Amino acid sequence: MTEEEKIEYLEFAKKLSKEAGKIMLEYFNKDNDYNYKSDRTIVTEVDKKINTLIIDEIRKKYPTHAIDGEEEKYGKSKYTWICDPIDGTAMYARKIPVSVFSLALAEDGIPKIGVVYDPFMDNLYSAAIGMGAYQNNTPIHVNNYKMEDKESLLLVDMWPTAEYNLYPTLEILGKKCYTISIGSIIRAGTSLAKGDFTLALFPGTKDKNCDIAALKVIIEEAGGKVTNLFGKEQRYDQPIHGAILSNGLVHEEIVQLLKEKLENNN
Amino acid sequence: MTEEEKIEYLEFAKKLSKEAGKIMLEYFNKDNDYNYKSDRTIVTEVDKKINTLIIDEIRKKYPTHAIDGEEEKYGKSKYTWICDPIDGTAMYARKIPVSVFSLALAEDGIPKIGVVYDPFMDNLYSAAIGMGAYQNNTPIHVNNYKMEDKESLLLVDMWPTAEYNLYPTLEILGKKCYTISIGSIIRAGTSLAKGDFTLALFPGTKDKNCDIAALKVIIEEAGGKVTNLFGKEQRYDQPIHGAILSNGLVHEEIVQLLKEKLENNN
Repeated sequence: MTEEEKIEYLEFAKKLSKEAGKIMLEYFNKDNDYNYKSDRTIVTEVDKKINTLIIDEIRKKYPTHAIDGEEEKYGKSKYTWICDPIDGTAMYARKIPVSVFSLALAEDGIPKIGVVYDPFMDNLYSAAIGMGAYQNNTPIHVNNYKMEDKESLLLVDMWPTAEYNLYPTLEILGKKCYTISIGSIIRAGTSLAKGDFTLALFPGTKDKNCDIAALKVIIEEAGGKVTNLFGKEQRYDQPIHGAILSNGLVHEEIVQLLKEKLENNN
Repeated sequence: MTEEEKIEYLEFAKKLSKEAGKIMLEYFNKDNDYNYKSDRTIVTEVDKKINTLIIDEIRKKYPTHAIDGEEEKYGKSKYTWICDPIDGTAMYARKIPVSVFSLALAEDGIPKIGVVYDPFMDNLYSAAIGMGAYQNNTPIHVNNYKMEDKESLLLVDMWPTAEYNLYPTLEILGKKCYTISIGSIIRAGTSLAKGDFTLALFPGTKDKNCDIAALKVIIEEAGGKVTNLFGKEQRYDQPIHGAILSNGLVHEEIVQLLKEKLENNN
């Protein structure tokens, strides 16, 4: 991928993300009688609407590229667009404004372009490999905290069908630093990229590569590190084995801790 | 407390909460170069500014009442105003829009009036004992889900110096339902009051009564239940022993589980 191609893909992805964000906000602000059940129906509707928009636009512009749209997949190519239309749907359905849109372009499984758009704060996070990471037009960087530093913040995403059990790890880390789980690993990952969180752990499961693909570029271009739960690199155009997302500095410590805890508990 | 007094106190508390929310938003939206360290300084500043406003206004209007302002305490009375100027400061400092303002009035330790204001969504949650709970002018109610229902959502708040270790409990509950921790127990509690969450657990520590006082009235007026971690009632004008906040339906099941798990782990 040449520099010019990177810029072209990145601008295309940014434009799509703004359009997706507009749809997210429009539905979010609809009055729906504070009814969670009807909110859930709306989530399904808006999720699908955004997915369709993204798939249509990519197929029009790059008909030879493959698309991994979480539930819908198209084609086979060394280039794969990986999209999570709304990350944090459970929060979106409950009117907690932390959900985001995410889109990545991977070449041979390696994310080269990543964008995340937070429509509630109007923040666009973007990166192309080798070209730095940005929040809107400002360069962003991970922090340099250790786990014990009082500014450190750990993010864990958890759900019943997750592939790996992170609770034993969490019990140890939770005594070192404040731990949260805001319901969107991607929103949390952008906070990590700009230095607000130190570490995020993602227990993984089928199709969850869509949650990490864009973050892989954004966080690493911001100076951090993203691997699977065993500290290894992995492809993002296929199922992943969870993820450790960190400022880089604490990465090896967490790999060692997980090695011990996952062996004992999975 | 007569009906008329309740209405008077409630209106006073609502007015104060809107003023506090205005200050929260003003500082939140200030450009501060995406710098977390400078954000933290701002949090301290805005926290103090809101606390001073609330204390001044209460002392002017109800000079005989006591005030528990998390860090500042005034007077002794059967009436105590309990204020948390910003719940979720760690999120506020990181520009994650989930923090809220909370104010309660307790009579002999029992919260009778409770208001919570979410300035980001412009939602005011309020309740007076015996008079129902509201989001703005709409009555709100807890849900009737069991823990296993797929709509169920569990909220846990966790920090290193918490009084009780909830991780072993969490490991069991986390296999039944999706678990989050949005960084503000009070914001989560309002979601519980309107049926979006089923259960919230709060591990407690010194001065954390301020986090639960207003929720005690709001959630119970919405049909739910709030007790300490052992299922017992407690005073909210002094340190509390954690809290279980629930839709009522799952309360006893959680009390039993915690009884077993806290005995084993604390």
